[in-house]
Amino acid sequence: MEQIKELKIKEYQSIPVVVGESDSVYDAISAMFLEDVGTLFVVDESSHLAGVLSRKDLLRASIGNQDLESMPVSIIMTRMPNITVCKKDDLLIEVASHLIERQIDAIPVVNEKENNRYEVVGRVTKTTMTKVLVHLIHSELPQGGKRS
Amino acid sequence: MEQIKELKIKEYQSIPVVVGESDSVYDAISAMFLEDVGTLFVVDESSHLAGVLSRKDLLRASIGNQDLESMPVSIIMTRMPNITVCKKDDLLIEVASHLIERQIDAIPVVNEKENNRYEVVGRVTKTTMTKVLVHLIHSELPQGGKRS
Repeated sequence: MEQIKELKIKEYQSIPVVVGESDSVYDAISAMFLEDVGTLFVVDESSHLAGVLSRKDLLRASIGNQDLESMPVSIIMTRMPNITVCKKDDLLIEVASHLIERQIDAIPVVNEKENNRYEVVGRVTKTTMTKVLVHLIHSELPQGGKRS
Repeated sequence: MEQIKELKIKEYQSIPVVVGESDSVYDAISAMFLEDVGTLFVVDESSHLAGVLSRKDLLRASIGNQDLESMPVSIIMTRMPNITVCKKDDLLIEVASHLIERQIDAIPVVNEKENNRYEVVGRVTKTTMTKVLVHLIHSELPQGGKRS
């Protein structure tokens, strides 16, 4: 059980799906269906993290009787600094706690750049945590997990 | 670790949020926001499980340029028998595996009635599994978990 406490995010993170902050809500919804993810990360022109879009955000916008093709995602996204982020060396269990305590579905894995800006390098979700639980119980931890 | 394998669904299930199959898609979206859940279960006139509605189903309907207030949820829901269900005495780990393998967000906990009909008594989601992971690692299993 001690071993579980040492698992790092980098061993379990998924590939992030990002959209640009000037992309339309319609394009974001299309990306969400195409990539089959529950959360999109929004980046600015210099590819730094600018926001997060959940299915709930997109659903709220889509019932609002507005033109989704002309509405940029920047209007409806959750913005920095109100975004929970994590880093590849963070403990999995701490990030799992953040998902529960803050009632969010996904957290971007970031590299910190100059001026408090973040490059998005991964994605951790409740699906990640459910997979970890299954692996733990089947004693099939990925190689990374066994190392620690 | 053996203890984890014996955890039962009934110790962790949440309260289900249900809508009627003649309710409108608009009402379902309202219920989803009001109750803050990612999945709704749909019941027929005799309160038996008829379908499941995900945020993805509702998002797809909402961008379809149709009148959401006159469209019943029965048109867009996933129907029986294409629904994965579980029972209160099922093992948590088996249900976690179903969530991953079948790529679904939530599974209804049911009581089987006559004629292969199901009464919905609970809800198990990836949030449930993330909570279990956090509890396991903090060694704070709820009383039910400690019993087994």
